[in-house]
Amino acid sequence: MKVATFRWGGRRCVGALSADASEITPLALPGERAAAVGALALIEWMSAGKPAPLASGPRLPLAAVQLEAPLPQPRRNLFCIGRNYRAHARELAGTVFSDIAKKEDGWPIVFTKVPECVIGPGAPIRVPAGITEQVDYEAELAVVIGRGGANIRAARALEHVWGYTIVNDVSARDVQQRHVQWDLGKSFDTFCPMGPWLVDANELDARDLRLRCWVNGELRQEARTSEMIFDIPTLIETCSRGITLYPGDVIATGTPAGVGMGFAPPKWLRSGDRVRIEIEGIGVLDNPVQ
Amino acid sequence: MKVATFRWGGRRCVGALSADASEITPLALPGERAAAVGALALIEWMSAGKPAPLASGPRLPLAAVQLEAPLPQPRRNLFCIGRNYRAHARELAGTVFSDIAKKEDGWPIVFTKVPECVIGPGAPIRVPAGITEQVDYEAELAVVIGRGGANIRAARALEHVWGYTIVNDVSARDVQQRHVQWDLGKSFDTFCPMGPWLVDANELDARDLRLRCWVNGELRQEARTSEMIFDIPTLIETCSRGITLYPGDVIATGTPAGVGMGFAPPKWLRSGDRVRIEIEGIGVLDNPVQ
Repeated sequence: MKVATFRWGGRRCVGALSADASEITPLALPGERAAAVGALALIEWMSAGKPAPLASGPRLPLAAVQLEAPLPQPRRNLFCIGRNYRAHARELAGTVFSDIAKKEDGWPIVFTKVPECVIGPGAPIRVPAGITEQVDYEAELAVVIGRGGANIRAARALEHVWGYTIVNDVSARDVQQRHVQWDLGKSFDTFCPMGPWLVDANELDARDLRLRCWVNGELRQEARTSEMIFDIPTLIETCSRGITLYPGDVIATGTPAGVGMGFAPPKWLRSGDRVRIEIEGIGVLDNPVQ
Repeated sequence: MKVATFRWGGRRCVGALSADASEITPLALPGERAAAVGALALIEWMSAGKPAPLASGPRLPLAAVQLEAPLPQPRRNLFCIGRNYRAHARELAGTVFSDIAKKEDGWPIVFTKVPECVIGPGAPIRVPAGITEQVDYEAELAVVIGRGGANIRAARALEHVWGYTIVNDVSARDVQQRHVQWDLGKSFDTFCPMGPWLVDANELDARDLRLRCWVNGELRQEARTSEMIFDIPTLIETCSRGITLYPGDVIATGTPAGVGMGFAPPKWLRSGDRVRIEIEGIGVLDNPVQ
């Protein structure tokens, strides 16, 4: 099942997509919760053991609705993984983050992004004027937790996955570095494009998907999710060690090589650019830079 | 005004304390919101420009109610400041965090704690077995945002403060260090005692308050908030640069010297310990370690 959050008739709705993703059927969910948090209302509903919701209206052409981020208001900061592809670790070695590159075989690096920096497909990434000169893109597979829990073992971790989506972990490299900890430089308003929708874990095996990212049509990132240093079960085990995970928590699994910082000279995002990310089995997330 | 979140008759309530903090008067707030988020409901209410709520019941003896954290469910991860007192920066120089100590005069270090690790006065701090051997305390003044906004200038920042409380930024030093980024090692369940209540900014000038912390009656930390490297207005300016702050956001302002890690050998928290923090003008936050 593919599930999207969208605006229709001035309201935020949650719907299931047809197999070819050309049509969307609104789902009957508690209206106030769906209006507040989009598809998170569905994940909470199903994770509470309730039956799959029925259709609440006729199929709509996807082209007639406005897609939003599937989780427009995550329940708390997103968990994000740093340095999780070997080729990306190697490109970091030539940057101000070289000390991180050396620790390649240690533990996963985990930082966060504030939930309010999430934006939907097509929404503009705004470069905050006077605050950063080094805005970069990071194409990533994002895991969305279904059933929560603490101390989840890797062997059982996939049972806790509701599904997957794409995020662009937009990063202000100068800010990320100067504060030592990365959360601020990752959390500027609009710095987390997400979408175009969720694909549930029954439909998609995420272990070996092709991931690509283009800036203005130029292919910058190309990798397979099987190239992750720490796989999805390990990341869930890591984030849940001593920390209870909840339905709708997001773990962005890290970006492969090809970020703007890795070029000489670096290729920072500028107003007028477009970032297009495609992950096999999910779809395309495309955002302009304003 | 001092405002507390408490349980009474099986329900979560929000109330105003008497001047001597011996009695508490429940406040009339939207019941469902207050039950979900405690005093955050009051901050949202007042930040929306609504009048101060009336009493909704008779005064209760404080001893007859059970205090909870004033913000038992913050709206997103807490912003937390690292290395914000010079004497603490010096004690870090002798630890695995020595690289941080050197950057003393740079930018504030900002990391986060998940909202669900907040616990109230008297609630036990649980050491997660098999996950960390190095649990430490950090006594801190916490700033609670009232009116939100982005790009708040330091000169106007105090207009955005609703009030203050105490937090214990409990930290697993081994976990904090091995993941490079600190968020996980700061976010274990129960790792953020908060309280005993909020004191509003009309009542308390937080620029020069005495802060002390005892473990099992032994004085470990003693400083004044005037010794911060980056003062409260600067911290608000920093966190809001390009990032919209919302009513109820929490900024924990960093801890002074005297943490367990700074002793030789280190003095880690153990089951059976008690951590007591007192900040002048606010009160006492006391929690056992389980």
